[in-house]
Amino acid sequence: MTGAQGFFSSRWVQRPDHVAELEPAGLPTGFRAAGVACGIKDSGARDLALLVSDSPDTSSAARFTRSGTLAAPVLLTIDRANVQGLRVIVVNSGNANAATGLPGLEHAAEMQSLAAAAAGAPQDRAAVASTGVVGVPLPIAAVRAGIEAARSELRPDGNVDFAEAIRSTDAFAKHARLEVALPGGTVHLTAQAKGAGMISPDFATLLCFVQSDAALSPQTCDLLLRVTVKRSFERVTVDGQLSPSDTVILQCSGRSGVRVEPETEDELRFGEALDVLLRQLALMVIRDGEGARRVGRVLARGGDPQAVERVARAVANSQLVKTALYGGDPNWGRIAQAVGMAMPGTAPLAFEIAIEGVQVCERGAYVPHAAEALKAAVNRPEVEYEIGLPGEGAETEVYFSDLGHEYVTINADYTT
Amino acid sequence: MTGAQGFFSSRWVQRPDHVAELEPAGLPTGFRAAGVACGIKDSGARDLALLVSDSPDTSSAARFTRSGTLAAPVLLTIDRANVQGLRVIVVNSGNANAATGLPGLEHAAEMQSLAAAAAGAPQDRAAVASTGVVGVPLPIAAVRAGIEAARSELRPDGNVDFAEAIRSTDAFAKHARLEVALPGGTVHLTAQAKGAGMISPDFATLLCFVQSDAALSPQTCDLLLRVTVKRSFERVTVDGQLSPSDTVILQCSGRSGVRVEPETEDELRFGEALDVLLRQLALMVIRDGEGARRVGRVLARGGDPQAVERVARAVANSQLVKTALYGGDPNWGRIAQAVGMAMPGTAPLAFEIAIEGVQVCERGAYVPHAAEALKAAVNRPEVEYEIGLPGEGAETEVYFSDLGHEYVTINADYTT
Repeated sequence: MTGAQGFFSSRWVQRPDHVAELEPAGLPTGFRAAGVACGIKDSGARDLALLVSDSPDTSSAARFTRSGTLAAPVLLTIDRANVQGLRVIVVNSGNANAATGLPGLEHAAEMQSLAAAAAGAPQDRAAVASTGVVGVPLPIAAVRAGIEAARSELRPDGNVDFAEAIRSTDAFAKHARLEVALPGGTVHLTAQAKGAGMISPDFATLLCFVQSDAALSPQTCDLLLRVTVKRSFERVTVDGQLSPSDTVILQCSGRSGVRVEPETEDELRFGEALDVLLRQLALMVIRDGEGARRVGRVLARGGDPQAVERVARAVANSQLVKTALYGGDPNWGRIAQAVGMAMPGTAPLAFEIAIEGVQVCERGAYVPHAAEALKAAVNRPEVEYEIGLPGEGAETEVYFSDLGHEYVTINADYTT
Repeated sequence: MTGAQGFFSSRWVQRPDHVAELEPAGLPTGFRAAGVACGIKDSGARDLALLVSDSPDTSSAARFTRSGTLAAPVLLTIDRANVQGLRVIVVNSGNANAATGLPGLEHAAEMQSLAAAAAGAPQDRAAVASTGVVGVPLPIAAVRAGIEAARSELRPDGNVDFAEAIRSTDAFAKHARLEVALPGGTVHLTAQAKGAGMISPDFATLLCFVQSDAALSPQTCDLLLRVTVKRSFERVTVDGQLSPSDTVILQCSGRSGVRVEPETEDELRFGEALDVLLRQLALMVIRDGEGARRVGRVLARGGDPQAVERVARAVANSQLVKTALYGGDPNWGRIAQAVGMAMPGTAPLAFEIAIEGVQVCERGAYVPHAAEALKAAVNRPEVEYEIGLPGEGAETEVYFSDLGHEYVTINADYTT
């Protein structure tokens, strides 16, 4: 994930030729970042992250969770930040500052104010994010000290520390650094993401911050982020749960001098790079889905787009399918069961199932197949399930992590 | 579960004074049953169950899963049985005969035909049910031999063997025998149920067979079964999954000579007895929810019935809430998260949470509470969560099992 050749590790994401992977440390021109330990986490690990663009012309776009129980930093950022021109991002891990009422909102506002001051930026150019346990008051004194410490550590290669500091139950840090050759010149993209629970296809359901030295209008930022989030973080699920904290932000400093104008080849190529970046990060998030050892992909096709979507998500969120994936068990009857649950009242339904290209079910019924080949196929790190519903024209995919003992261990013991 | 005093074991089900528990063995007058081993299960455990009413006037009612991938026996029973006058029930465990196509339908039809013949009843008076693995052809030769063997074992006290033979991953058999004092006379109720996975509140999601010697019209059977299933099996979830096989059948032989007429005190009392019987069986199913060690009850209240229902199910089906219940962890932030997921776009939402009577969240925010008392409360076998949404007038409940290592072990290894 952090090695030079290691980032594009999934067969489901193809790196385009104009995108090259670089050594991880180093932000695009105009950005500095830091990640420090301020004592929120009992472990003493880094838990306060600060990222700053020194360019007053920085453009940005943001996407947030749709939860009805939004965390204070999300409420604050939506209400009081200029999400088209964010220069500063402050994040703490170890505490989500969610379900914390008015004191929580005051703490989020103070984080925004201190972070903006640390960067010398107006208050509304700072976004706030928190991740960790829900429903526990934020230890604001630690956060204050953390922002102060991070300010003095801000460095052009602080992205790796930043990625470390936003982790909660993540088993590994998720970040990347890419060089993108556009017709108009070379630009860079860096990103830092964290999972690992409360991940569902309803939205990005994680924290992800992306920086570039390309020059984009806020409208172009928003368009590209919207489209690429829809194809990445909105297509993954760990546990079908929606977090109150999910936030994705794209910032463009413009310092490369390369402008990305709407409806140009530059925009297309930049969008492709952002797309593979977010898709690979999304896959890393579910690969790290609280103890996951295998990742599945459901590819559903049929004539009714809503049915296709419902079926894909029902399969990806099925505890029975997820435990079978964990066990390397080719038990496709559970997929048939999930399809049936998503299609009430349609029996007898003429559906098809193939696993790793092995057809196991046609017109709703078992077909003879090579059981040994199938068994071997489902024991690989990535397993693909194709589901055919009646009709044609609609297709969707959902990526999901398995459900195993490590998930139970992590979540039975991750306490308030 | 089977002892004389052991059946009504939950604080959430109160046995009415006119209902008494009897020693388990013994069917109501008019019924005989058997459960034998025919070799479908590799373990050699009982896997073929047969139940017969000797009364030609037997009335009945049935409820089935709404899955779009109905198992062959469900399709067959809906299509070709007279569900108002079922006299015979044949069940095999170890194989669901689901996603088995035309051969599966032919096997189900043969089961119906053989069972009806074994009982000397017309073919359409027999219902067929199968439970076990999905998508594997039914070993029909074993089933044929099993029906023949069961026929010669039919006994008035065969209900315990019957309950044994319908088990799949159930850790214990679930059955009861009750005496019910009605104004018109004394009647009896027996029932046999099985879980334990693919259990969701969308429907009964299990097999449950109920017998009585009371005399009810098919219409009264249907009314009472509909109402009591709605309050029992439709309010429980193990894993949020809907099985293609779920079937609940009530049969009344009339042999007690006590008639239960519509809108009488007899009907009310009989309904109360059926209600506590099914509610306690539903709780036993989730108590045995593939390794469950604790059972939760979500009680949701508010002004919008749909929102109340959505929230209750979101909490009960949340992997995060279920693992916290397993861990005896009072992490109520996960409940707040599930509430938010069920109420997108409503933030900030003024919701309340109490766990075992301890208020932890008011108007969407943390309130100070006795952490030690709460920690002790969530370590008991039954844990109650109360959720208040804005408004008044609507209320619902959902019972759920926890999610632990045993669930993973059972489901990662339960293979085709």
